[in-house]
Amino acid sequence: MLAQELFLQNQQSILDDYFTFLRFPSIATDPQHLSDVRACASWLKQWMMTCGLQVQSWHEDSIPVLLASDLRAGPHKKTLLLYAHYDVQPVDPLELWTTPPFEPSLREGCIYARGASDDKGQCFYTLCAIRDFLKQHGSLPFNLKFLIEGEEECGSEGLESLLKTHAHHLHAEDLLVVDSSLEAPEQPSITLGARGIISMTVTLTEGAADLHSGRFGGLAINPNKAMVQLLSKLHDATGKVAIEGFYDDVFPPSAEELAALSCEFDLTAFQDAHGFTPHGMEQGTSPLQANWFRPTLEINGISGGYAGPGFKTVIPAVTCAKLSCRLVPQQNPERIVKLLTQFLEKHASAHLKLEIAVHQGTAPGFRRPAHSPLVQLVSQSYSDIFEKPCKKILCGASIPIVPALAQASGAEPVLIGTALSTDRIHAPDEHFSLDSFKKGYLTIYRLLELYKESSS
Amino acid sequence: MLAQELFLQNQQSILDDYFTFLRFPSIATDPQHLSDVRACASWLKQWMMTCGLQVQSWHEDSIPVLLASDLRAGPHKKTLLLYAHYDVQPVDPLELWTTPPFEPSLREGCIYARGASDDKGQCFYTLCAIRDFLKQHGSLPFNLKFLIEGEEECGSEGLESLLKTHAHHLHAEDLLVVDSSLEAPEQPSITLGARGIISMTVTLTEGAADLHSGRFGGLAINPNKAMVQLLSKLHDATGKVAIEGFYDDVFPPSAEELAALSCEFDLTAFQDAHGFTPHGMEQGTSPLQANWFRPTLEINGISGGYAGPGFKTVIPAVTCAKLSCRLVPQQNPERIVKLLTQFLEKHASAHLKLEIAVHQGTAPGFRRPAHSPLVQLVSQSYSDIFEKPCKKILCGASIPIVPALAQASGAEPVLIGTALSTDRIHAPDEHFSLDSFKKGYLTIYRLLELYKESSS
Repeated sequence: MLAQELFLQNQQSILDDYFTFLRFPSIATDPQHLSDVRACASWLKQWMMTCGLQVQSWHEDSIPVLLASDLRAGPHKKTLLLYAHYDVQPVDPLELWTTPPFEPSLREGCIYARGASDDKGQCFYTLCAIRDFLKQHGSLPFNLKFLIEGEEECGSEGLESLLKTHAHHLHAEDLLVVDSSLEAPEQPSITLGARGIISMTVTLTEGAADLHSGRFGGLAINPNKAMVQLLSKLHDATGKVAIEGFYDDVFPPSAEELAALSCEFDLTAFQDAHGFTPHGMEQGTSPLQANWFRPTLEINGISGGYAGPGFKTVIPAVTCAKLSCRLVPQQNPERIVKLLTQFLEKHASAHLKLEIAVHQGTAPGFRRPAHSPLVQLVSQSYSDIFEKPCKKILCGASIPIVPALAQASGAEPVLIGTALSTDRIHAPDEHFSLDSFKKGYLTIYRLLELYKESSS
Repeated sequence: MLAQELFLQNQQSILDDYFTFLRFPSIATDPQHLSDVRACASWLKQWMMTCGLQVQSWHEDSIPVLLASDLRAGPHKKTLLLYAHYDVQPVDPLELWTTPPFEPSLREGCIYARGASDDKGQCFYTLCAIRDFLKQHGSLPFNLKFLIEGEEECGSEGLESLLKTHAHHLHAEDLLVVDSSLEAPEQPSITLGARGIISMTVTLTEGAADLHSGRFGGLAINPNKAMVQLLSKLHDATGKVAIEGFYDDVFPPSAEELAALSCEFDLTAFQDAHGFTPHGMEQGTSPLQANWFRPTLEINGISGGYAGPGFKTVIPAVTCAKLSCRLVPQQNPERIVKLLTQFLEKHASAHLKLEIAVHQGTAPGFRRPAHSPLVQLVSQSYSDIFEKPCKKILCGASIPIVPALAQASGAEPVLIGTALSTDRIHAPDEHFSLDSFKKGYLTIYRLLELYKESSS
């Protein structure tokens, strides 16, 4: 197989460049890393230009959005748009990393680094496959665009504004979002939908400074206590969100949807992979139901007072919590933000100052039909590479930009990727296996071949 | 007045040495500062020896306890024992300090530094007064001992073990604990009692690593959510601790006790000083009642997941909380630890790992009679310096070592000090006014004069 040979020939330089890509601490959510994010984009742009792609970039003064194109087929031919991102999640708790997050380390067939899987790894095998595919072809019956943004992990603000003003640059028939994962190792799967997301920071403040817990204990309202009491009201005893109206637009999946999806949940495999048993479901809900078809409300972070080594007898001046909801398709994100805000305002202590800051990246969930031509082609590519039938699944996570990107480009979206749920994305010791990287490369290469055939 | 003149003569060198004392980051609760704690003790020992005091030290390989003595009166005379501490609280949140906590800064008549008030400031004016008083006298009708420990803020482990093995070194008739505060600026007061304390670290752990809140949201139990729900059960809707048996040994003060105490609470002065209105009392309880005669249960710290800038879509592997109780005299600390532990074990999610670590420094509360000879002498010293009658008050904070120290030395304890509740002890921008420092010096000097007269 040609792609196999090409990969083996180029493997060393591919890995070298992938490691360089991983060394940029491109944490877009943290303003301190802005220059690292830009340096990463600049390196990536240069790399793509060296491959012979035309590259446009926007927002170079903040967080660049890159669009690489090969338009050799001409304006009257079909266009395939791909999407990935070069920004990564923050890295703390840093002490739990075996090797530093921005010094990629190859151990037992896996590359350990922040972004190794999500999404620099997937972005980079896609780029390498495109480069090698294009080199093999003089003329092509389709155009190709690859959109790579730098704010996926913190709200896609730059890309969203671009979609409003430059949507015509992104026009395409088909959209491949390369930021998803396989259902299980060696089990190819296409993701037909994802949940939406809203997130916010909630703070409760008393005075201007922390207080001595003896001298003021019994007098001052402890913001930690007030926060704990406030947040404890968000869920009822069955695990359901206790905000009135929260489930108004949550509907069970149709029989047709269920039939098209692979709905097995392997409890033993889950336990082996993650080291715990799923017990967080709403009462009477199965794990897959809870993750695919039900919204959530999580406390992603909480911090107030002194929680370091030893002990400090303090009543904090301020306590902070980070909340987020995963939403199913019919739920309107703005409405959920409003309901949650009203709930917090209603139940917070009247004697403390409540502040709510809604984050960028609010997005609805979506589910796409299982029988589009692109789904067929991707399915075929996966089965060719993995030598197994490809499953159709949903994803409990969010890729906030997908609904907006599909609308702006006019393209039908499909989510793919060879990441695994055991890659520890967003966590210490994130990693990506060399095998996953190679399979990703081969799948993209195969898909381009099939797309070419179908476009001729 | 002689003491006035002595202070003015020595002021510059006193301040220089006080600043040197403050520069040691003697945070005993943090193992990283162990060498700083030792360096501080070593400097202090040297300083006291230079003053002509005999100094013994114990636990020099860990956190030293120092005992300075002047025994010129001989073994058949009365002994006055004083107590202070040279360790300080941790300093975070560091960003809220106007100037660095271990670079003392004199601004508008106040010295800003960690420990400026609690307790290095009070320790040092006491030392200077003792030095200057002793220089003025050839023979004396009483002996003097000054015990200075380095673990007051984290449990007094070293001193407690010393009390068991070397109590005879501390034998005294009277005990002055110089770690307390005035009721208000210019209002002298003696503290006749303090609350006890217990503290613990509580952790809830799920798996080995943080999880992606989309991919695992709905499946995993979020330890933040479980912690919030657990801690919200600690108090009922009226603000009372909801642990059965917690108030079994809590009794209202006797009419006699109340009559001896100054029980006014100046709400306006409190609001002006602290910038908030006390709303944290149990329902139906006045501020002073709540702070003096009722126990508390506080969440001193809570931390789980990502609470930094931006947002991180994480379900944490572990969440931690620091809890403490302030106890009134009849409450048995060991019993309260047991009740709290049982409550947490009963109500914590059975699917998470609960760990409870009880900290050093467990101590009962105490209240002493208002009419002892030492109380009379201290009262007189205060009125002489402040030219106002001295009040008797209680303290909501804890000085855990006092009951044990009183028992081991055989001395009647009295708590004094010219600190103010606005000194921001344990908080950013801790400070001590030069005036408070001077008044402290003069009060100790005057007390030594009166103690001499009464001993003759």
